[in-house]
Amino acid sequence: MTKWFIIVFSCVTLQSFAQVTTDSAAFFIRDIYRQSYTEMQSYKWLTTLTKDIGPRLSGSENSAEAIKWAKATMDTFGLDSVWLQPVMVPHWVRGEKEQVLMIAEGGITITLKALALGNSPGTGKNGIQAEVIEVQSLDQLKELPDRMIQGKIVFFNRAMDLGQLSTFSAYGGAADQRTTGPIAAAERGAVAVVIRSLSTDQDDSPHTGMTRLSEEITNIPSLALSTNDAAVLSNTLKNGKVELYIRTTCEMKEDVLSFNVIGEIKGTDYPKEIILVGGHFDSWDVGEGAHDDGSGCMHSMEVLYRLVKNNYKPRRTLRCVLFINEENGLRGGTAYAEEALKNNEFYTAAIESDAGGFTPQSFGCSVGDHASLDTTLSYMSGYMELLEPYDIELKRGGGGADISGLRPVAGMLIGMRPDNARYFDYHHSDRDILENVHPRELASGAAALTSLVFLIDQYGIKG
Amino acid sequence: MTKWFIIVFSCVTLQSFAQVTTDSAAFFIRDIYRQSYTEMQSYKWLTTLTKDIGPRLSGSENSAEAIKWAKATMDTFGLDSVWLQPVMVPHWVRGEKEQVLMIAEGGITITLKALALGNSPGTGKNGIQAEVIEVQSLDQLKELPDRMIQGKIVFFNRAMDLGQLSTFSAYGGAADQRTTGPIAAAERGAVAVVIRSLSTDQDDSPHTGMTRLSEEITNIPSLALSTNDAAVLSNTLKNGKVELYIRTTCEMKEDVLSFNVIGEIKGTDYPKEIILVGGHFDSWDVGEGAHDDGSGCMHSMEVLYRLVKNNYKPRRTLRCVLFINEENGLRGGTAYAEEALKNNEFYTAAIESDAGGFTPQSFGCSVGDHASLDTTLSYMSGYMELLEPYDIELKRGGGGADISGLRPVAGMLIGMRPDNARYFDYHHSDRDILENVHPRELASGAAALTSLVFLIDQYGIKG
Repeated sequence: MTKWFIIVFSCVTLQSFAQVTTDSAAFFIRDIYRQSYTEMQSYKWLTTLTKDIGPRLSGSENSAEAIKWAKATMDTFGLDSVWLQPVMVPHWVRGEKEQVLMIAEGGITITLKALALGNSPGTGKNGIQAEVIEVQSLDQLKELPDRMIQGKIVFFNRAMDLGQLSTFSAYGGAADQRTTGPIAAAERGAVAVVIRSLSTDQDDSPHTGMTRLSEEITNIPSLALSTNDAAVLSNTLKNGKVELYIRTTCEMKEDVLSFNVIGEIKGTDYPKEIILVGGHFDSWDVGEGAHDDGSGCMHSMEVLYRLVKNNYKPRRTLRCVLFINEENGLRGGTAYAEEALKNNEFYTAAIESDAGGFTPQSFGCSVGDHASLDTTLSYMSGYMELLEPYDIELKRGGGGADISGLRPVAGMLIGMRPDNARYFDYHHSDRDILENVHPRELASGAAALTSLVFLIDQYGIKG
Repeated sequence: MTKWFIIVFSCVTLQSFAQVTTDSAAFFIRDIYRQSYTEMQSYKWLTTLTKDIGPRLSGSENSAEAIKWAKATMDTFGLDSVWLQPVMVPHWVRGEKEQVLMIAEGGITITLKALALGNSPGTGKNGIQAEVIEVQSLDQLKELPDRMIQGKIVFFNRAMDLGQLSTFSAYGGAADQRTTGPIAAAERGAVAVVIRSLSTDQDDSPHTGMTRLSEEITNIPSLALSTNDAAVLSNTLKNGKVELYIRTTCEMKEDVLSFNVIGEIKGTDYPKEIILVGGHFDSWDVGEGAHDDGSGCMHSMEVLYRLVKNNYKPRRTLRCVLFINEENGLRGGTAYAEEALKNNEFYTAAIESDAGGFTPQSFGCSVGDHASLDTTLSYMSGYMELLEPYDIELKRGGGGADISGLRPVAGMLIGMRPDNARYFDYHHSDRDILENVHPRELASGAAALTSLVFLIDQYGIKG
């Protein structure tokens, strides 16, 4: 009875005063967690997004349908406004299923599981066949004489270093093979590139992801092999010459009109100070983009949904932004930042959730161009202790790709850091599906983000 | 090159001096994590334990085989001693597959998925049939008149409260239905009890677990229904009278000789101060006891394995203890504590891992009878910051069932707290299998425990 009374009292307080006491804030956060865990709103939306709509590569019909659905869904929240921000996005298509045949000495031929890398060109309908040369790194490629590379298929086979504390560090340490490996190989005369999938698991699912081309060099078909098949290829190479036959029909089409989806609640006290929470709404075309980044988008929608549902009147302006085209262009984030800068907007905090729908461990923080991280974190520590019962804290370093352009006009840039043990088992592969998202873990992320947005809205980032 | 030099230097330091600098300790912990993540030793052992041996209910042949395997495995570590501590354990057997038929009005009969509760008696070969009465709590049962209970099957149907921050709290809030519900119902004249499984998921797998009987009342067949079938039964009851036919042949047999498995490294500086790390080696007879508590046992074995492998000479005596019979008797923990008290042993810390093989979040701490938690945590905070990069901290409150008897002779009692979102999806059900343990999450637990044991060994728990 006593407890019930206090909670009601705290809710009254929240609605009656602009800034609430930390006692009331603690009860409000507890309510947010309870509601997130019992309603599972993010998980319900994610089910629709993944099972009724599916993967959402920029420029695809699915992505257009998803944008329409998200706007319609946000329209029901009772926000002050929901709008679409137009963005021209690249439209890369995978085409027919990739064919990769490994032809070993003696003519033994085995099919390897592979996915073309995003933005990479196709081989043409006849495919290409060439000898394979394996390297572990771009440095090793540099040291090879031209004759060993020209006309060959370069195979980048360095595994992610699982000894790293974070799988994101392990990914960062291996990703150059995918992002710049193909063009580096092409510059030396290679005809195609295959890489070992950037994955923390040893399995049969290849992991795609963007590769960078240049204006000069665009004709380098590039694919990722499953980690199992990368091992097969590497082992076969130990016994002699190996050729690959590769056939892909992927291509980059004309740019397509697409949109960022934006929902907003105007602030009562400081309407010109914006707190942004977002994720990216595009995904790769395999799997369902459930963790990457359906989870972050549903998290961000739930922040505004939950606060409105609790009749919360924010002091600052709150925005949920679902950015388009993070995966293969960052056009959504770029367009958003350009307009924000043009309009002289100010972001108290820009927060991104793009590390999966797992149990959150911390928020990684950096500051905008005109702020000090020490001063900011020191001030915030005064209220961040309210998140201690939830095992959430602020850590140094972080942000997100889509919000990175806001640095000149932002107080803080924050990236949510969930447990990362499983993320790269699924990332960019056909395993990034709803079945690999746990409802309660997803709800923890939504609750943590909502609580953080609430606290920053209440108490700001400086004294 | 520089980094490599420092690591070698730090290892030298570790071997040459009894107490190491915190700089060296930081490097040593980083090495422990790297080795745990890349070697996956706990996961390899857990694969043998779950797939080659299987579930390990006290008194079963499997449990004897597991004990033999664990001793043989620890014998290879190069410890100072490995021994078996004899314990008489209860020997409950499930018998034939449970039969539960729901007979609704009009004679419609549906089979419900159920598991007998541990230690509960069977119905006899003919089974029993009676009308069902649903209650939500023991309090509600108390308020009912005798005539509504006598001769009936009482159905406890209160769900775990998912709004709780920890699923362990949710479990704690619902578990009385299983532990004391049956006997409370029997005391009022009920002929059997069924409960809604204590589960965080809505599915078809019933969750077993121990129920308590008394000397007076032993004849109350008790089962858990899957959460789906509990919903079916409850919905059917809304439309009129329902009878259940229940047939179980479980029974409690004669006690069996079993063992705790203990491995030890003698301390160099303070051999009489013991740091214990352990889990319970018995499991329920469904599933594979992978999370509960194969994970904690493999964690504990890896602590000693890893330290010996790094030529670490502990200052205090380190013990790994695999306790038998936590699930349905606690005889292993009780026998261990009795001997420890008899021998006037002293435990600097007794640490238990019995909350699953998920990513650890914190260590829950309490103190023994003669210590102050404030003073101890304050002292330890001086070195616990070395675990900050690993997102691990000490929290107030915790321990473990098996180590609880050591309170009179312990400085600290500590329970590892992993992420708990998924634990009760699997707990005590046929879903507690290796496939639901993630290798890297399991490795995180082993590394965290090893690091904690190392730090307590180095710096103690008081100044």
